[in-house]
Amino acid sequence: MSEPSGADSNTRPSTSHVGRRITPSNISNGEENSMPDFEFFGAVPRSPPNLTDFLTVWSVDVLPGTDDINKKQHRTNLYESDNLIVRRGQSFEIRISFNRPYVQGKDKFWVEFLIGRYPNITKGTYIPIYLEEQLEQGKWGAKIMTTWQNTLSLSIMSPAYCPVGRFRMYVAIMTPYGIRRTARDSDTDLYILFNPWCSDDAVYMDTEAEKEEYILNDIGHLYYGEASEVVSRAWIFGQFESGVLDSCLYALDRARMPLQARGCPIKVCRVASAVINSLDEDGILVGSWTGAYGDGVAPTAWNSSVDILLQYFRTRQPVRYGQCWVFAAVFNTVLRCLGIPSRVITNYSSAHDNDGDLVTDVILDENGKKDLEFTKDSIWNYHCWNECWMSRADLPPGYGGWQAVDATPQETSGGMFRCGPASVLAIKHGQVFFPFDAPYIYAEVNSDVIYWTRHKDGTLTKADVKTDQVGKLILTQKIGTELEENITEQYKFPEGSSNDKRAQESAIQYGVKKEKKVIAKPMDVSLRVQVEEKILIGTGFVISLEFKNNSDEKRTVTVQLSGSVDFYTGVPNSNFIDQTLKVFVEPHQVQQAQVKIKPKDYVNRLVEQSTLSFLITGRVKENEQILVAKKIIALQIPMLRMKVEGPTQFGREVNLVTEFTNPLKQNLENVVLRLEGLGLLKPKIKFFSIILQNGTLTTSDVFVPWKHGPRKLVASLDCNLLRQVVGELWLTII
Amino acid sequence: MSEPSGADSNTRPSTSHVGRRITPSNISNGEENSMPDFEFFGAVPRSPPNLTDFLTVWSVDVLPGTDDINKKQHRTNLYESDNLIVRRGQSFEIRISFNRPYVQGKDKFWVEFLIGRYPNITKGTYIPIYLEEQLEQGKWGAKIMTTWQNTLSLSIMSPAYCPVGRFRMYVAIMTPYGIRRTARDSDTDLYILFNPWCSDDAVYMDTEAEKEEYILNDIGHLYYGEASEVVSRAWIFGQFESGVLDSCLYALDRARMPLQARGCPIKVCRVASAVINSLDEDGILVGSWTGAYGDGVAPTAWNSSVDILLQYFRTRQPVRYGQCWVFAAVFNTVLRCLGIPSRVITNYSSAHDNDGDLVTDVILDENGKKDLEFTKDSIWNYHCWNECWMSRADLPPGYGGWQAVDATPQETSGGMFRCGPASVLAIKHGQVFFPFDAPYIYAEVNSDVIYWTRHKDGTLTKADVKTDQVGKLILTQKIGTELEENITEQYKFPEGSSNDKRAQESAIQYGVKKEKKVIAKPMDVSLRVQVEEKILIGTGFVISLEFKNNSDEKRTVTVQLSGSVDFYTGVPNSNFIDQTLKVFVEPHQVQQAQVKIKPKDYVNRLVEQSTLSFLITGRVKENEQILVAKKIIALQIPMLRMKVEGPTQFGREVNLVTEFTNPLKQNLENVVLRLEGLGLLKPKIKFFSIILQNGTLTTSDVFVPWKHGPRKLVASLDCNLLRQVVGELWLTII
Repeated sequence: MSEPSGADSNTRPSTSHVGRRITPSNISNGEENSMPDFEFFGAVPRSPPNLTDFLTVWSVDVLPGTDDINKKQHRTNLYESDNLIVRRGQSFEIRISFNRPYVQGKDKFWVEFLIGRYPNITKGTYIPIYLEEQLEQGKWGAKIMTTWQNTLSLSIMSPAYCPVGRFRMYVAIMTPYGIRRTARDSDTDLYILFNPWCSDDAVYMDTEAEKEEYILNDIGHLYYGEASEVVSRAWIFGQFESGVLDSCLYALDRARMPLQARGCPIKVCRVASAVINSLDEDGILVGSWTGAYGDGVAPTAWNSSVDILLQYFRTRQPVRYGQCWVFAAVFNTVLRCLGIPSRVITNYSSAHDNDGDLVTDVILDENGKKDLEFTKDSIWNYHCWNECWMSRADLPPGYGGWQAVDATPQETSGGMFRCGPASVLAIKHGQVFFPFDAPYIYAEVNSDVIYWTRHKDGTLTKADVKTDQVGKLILTQKIGTELEENITEQYKFPEGSSNDKRAQESAIQYGVKKEKKVIAKPMDVSLRVQVEEKILIGTGFVISLEFKNNSDEKRTVTVQLSGSVDFYTGVPNSNFIDQTLKVFVEPHQVQQAQVKIKPKDYVNRLVEQSTLSFLITGRVKENEQILVAKKIIALQIPMLRMKVEGPTQFGREVNLVTEFTNPLKQNLENVVLRLEGLGLLKPKIKFFSIILQNGTLTTSDVFVPWKHGPRKLVASLDCNLLRQVVGELWLTII
Repeated sequence: MSEPSGADSNTRPSTSHVGRRITPSNISNGEENSMPDFEFFGAVPRSPPNLTDFLTVWSVDVLPGTDDINKKQHRTNLYESDNLIVRRGQSFEIRISFNRPYVQGKDKFWVEFLIGRYPNITKGTYIPIYLEEQLEQGKWGAKIMTTWQNTLSLSIMSPAYCPVGRFRMYVAIMTPYGIRRTARDSDTDLYILFNPWCSDDAVYMDTEAEKEEYILNDIGHLYYGEASEVVSRAWIFGQFESGVLDSCLYALDRARMPLQARGCPIKVCRVASAVINSLDEDGILVGSWTGAYGDGVAPTAWNSSVDILLQYFRTRQPVRYGQCWVFAAVFNTVLRCLGIPSRVITNYSSAHDNDGDLVTDVILDENGKKDLEFTKDSIWNYHCWNECWMSRADLPPGYGGWQAVDATPQETSGGMFRCGPASVLAIKHGQVFFPFDAPYIYAEVNSDVIYWTRHKDGTLTKADVKTDQVGKLILTQKIGTELEENITEQYKFPEGSSNDKRAQESAIQYGVKKEKKVIAKPMDVSLRVQVEEKILIGTGFVISLEFKNNSDEKRTVTVQLSGSVDFYTGVPNSNFIDQTLKVFVEPHQVQQAQVKIKPKDYVNRLVEQSTLSFLITGRVKENEQILVAKKIIALQIPMLRMKVEGPTQFGREVNLVTEFTNPLKQNLENVVLRLEGLGLLKPKIKFFSIILQNGTLTTSDVFVPWKHGPRKLVASLDCNLLRQVVGELWLTII
């Protein structure tokens, strides 16, 4: 560990343990007790005992090198660490050299592993390991593999339930006077992680391809935008980078999680979901959705979890700022780093900040226009959370597998700053009473949107209930590819199927509120809204409305179209268009109407994620039918164009050229470019005072790759006027 | 409300809502928006409209008096408040006087109830109530009862699921120009509470006697001491005292609980369990078990929840100090005050600060003596928590009824500062996967204690497993009496019954760890420990050990007896006796041994609850059997003797004499006496610099009763050397 994470002035004070516990809780990898070099049986004698007869340890080698057998066999050779890193439930080798050959029967010694300041033998945080004839799966034990002169090679077995974290190690030798121990040596410290390769471990995962992706892949894609216009960007998870593992353990220490509980992946996930956000226990990231990030980094500007985790570890302060995908990406790094298979998922659209039994209400006035004063709810265009893979010994059989966990702080009853793990299968079946927080995640993918008409005397009547807006698409990255995978069916049965109805009934039975569809008026006019695909930011476009009259009479529709620039949380920032149209539709005919949107209508109002939201409502004069349609447009933002010239060789300079063309008829000011690539380029930040309107920025960087193989460069560009500008480039280092 | 609980400098800052929510959460009874006196339809006209034709409200009377019909019918006449207090799901009467008689068909008006600063019609925090022909159970509505000249009497119905809290009220009159409203008038503010008398309410309770106890009783008894030596003391819950209801609402506001969620008793209980303790959200009480309470009030010195709640409300700061029974007593006040039936329970002995899957480990050395260095666990002699009564719509049917909630902050994985509600029935059946926190409460009543023998080489072997030490007795106060009721069977099946085994299997299946009994050695010697009953503090006593040899051979037992002064958490403060005995027992004979304890052995070491703990371990030489027995002695502390002379009449002076005899051969210094009686005496604190050794303090107080009927005086005496001195006295005020 590069810095001690010991007595921390920033740690939230806790109640004194005096009178309440015999010792304080054992909660920190970074604190330790000192073990006596010699532990006398009975009273300490006046003169030192003669120990020349007994073994003396000359050296201990835990074989921590990346080319040694341990890290290869434990799939931990990617971690940038000089210490041994192993996975639990699987044996590893250490070598002990004595002053003379070990004599079986005469010499007695054992190995001790300790973790934390108050290690305890019965809690599994102080572990004496004795020599056995045969190692047993599920039990700590040591076995002599080979002896060569004064050196013994031992195979050490850890059980598949032991705590994860950083252990220190001693060799203890029995003498008639007492126990003699080796001195504290941080070179022999070792990290023990969860083990998805071990069938006894709660995080066991079957196929190699899955483990390759969900444990070993240190880059990936995140999805945002809108269901009909999915946008993706590269993200560096970087779980193997130097210092990242220590940062992850520090975060759990900061949450004051008892070390003895850190063998249970369910508890580790739950505590980690709390500590990713800074509310409650001074966790890793501060959430902000305000659009003003001057005293930190805009959530859209990050490329990597590594910067965030290392900054947190270095400063001991929450890092500014995150939004849902940043929370999810950092959580993903923490989980993969500790050895829990995990992935980031994106839900389009996502109900949020509700209490699991609430619906999203939109209030229209009597003309069908959205009432901005009375509508207080919003739906998030998308929301990212994580899934982690584990068995659930705390639930009835069958609910293991993917578990949803959400690290974005929730503003619900009393504040919920931890969420999950909740069995995805239980959510699909509406079995929301299983812990943890299943009703909340169920609502995120299943809530209804109710459109209300508010009359002059203040009374409300239901105009429409949309049951298919929330959770219409759930995506994650497909194993072994850079493509997305649609996993909606893992959360939901097909809308309207009999299974779907059963799941809904189950959820309703356990307190989730669902609304019935209202068909108050005959719906004989239908409305379809269409917009061209891939609209570039700064360009104009046309919204086409198509009205179809299915009745035998003429219909007159008064249409209200309002367009606003929204945050991705669905919170409107400003309205930029309000238009009223009158449309006449002959019986059984289709009538079209078009509304033109010009760049100047919206450009100056854009907020960070460049989404435009249109609400089209209509009122049919003849039968008072209310039509409601919503259209969200995720504007296309040009990519950063990145290229290198010539060969890309290990240890040789590579010249990278990055280009960006400003799509706006306005200058971009105080532009920040961030570049990063694992094994290629440490995080690099460049400032540009201006990029002229429609101008092109070209910038060069030289780097020297220090790792072989296929490697990715990731870049982002950020300024107040334009965010979410990203780029990526694959290189193969030979 | 006597003080505004508005913008609070102490409130934990929350993330800005900007960009994330359209408005901030609606979380505070103490904040409000202003409603327009006149809400124009369309644009505001240049000259004020002529409104002489339309109704004008002259006055609104919500009939808030204790002698009016509303408070009587709603069983809220005990609350000391000038405002109306009603229970939901039950109609109440208000009277509106206009400038002229109301004309049906021509005049249109309605009543509006609002709560909080961001009231919202679809969230049930802004409620316009219209006139109906007939009131419907389960729906807001108003009905004209009588008209007399210009005055209308209205019956108002609230639904049995509406939020509880303090609502403000307007009368709105419809005119062609817009809506005219009455001005803000805090006299018409009303509190809506949970309603155990309403069968549609989730907190409905069947019998009148239960409601009388669990809602309306504002005094009660708490139990402490030890299972074989139960001690009780009177406690003033005082849920009806002036300011207490506002304090309870303020605590929920401080927890930032959305007002819209406050209709659900499950959520209210869960949030309240968090806010009773000061960890997490600057809640009501600071926990401390250190024995040093100089900067606050010792937990043992409180008599009443009222002082604590009012101090919290006045200072906006957590109150120092509480321990489990104080947390539980204050929680009880909050629950009864809000209308949720509740009681305080005491569990002897209680596993605590564990993670639901842990056991309590006691380490003995090879001679059977407790190893103080290696034993880190403790069991609480007792622990108090609450039960609240409600249906559980979030669980499968059958789990309604009593729900366990624990407000004492837990030091478990990552800190658990809220606990429950967990269905008591589910705990009994080992169905620990039902929310909330059932494994934790299951462990509190079911954990095992393991005695380990630690050998010289550090290895441990199990010496004994005691499955009957934890949760052996669970008490609460019996309805309508001052006696205790044994409710152990509500939490547990009889030890060893087939139901008990099934429940254990279920709990184990869902992750709770239970230990199997070890019968490694033939147990042919048994040990019984006896002590005389009711040992007065400061006196000596004898511990009798009885060894029975069931074998055909002679047995030699080496006995270790160690006595320590313990905190009630089982944490040893100091050892005062360590004695080794050797006992020979002939075949099939009984052998006695006695150990004398003198006052000077323990008196100077006592901590606040005056419990002595003896661990007696023995090792049988012939068969290496280990004997383990534990004995806890709760020393008797003399009561405060209270008496009055002459008649006790309403409004007339009464002379109270309080006496106390110091049982110790030491002077008591800086003694604090606290006296309180609902309707008799506001909390009174008296200081005495010294009470001489074995001396008697006699002190007089004069008070004037302001309430009729049977009333109780409660007193406590506290100083560093002696705590838990209490007294009580029933008076009937005529």
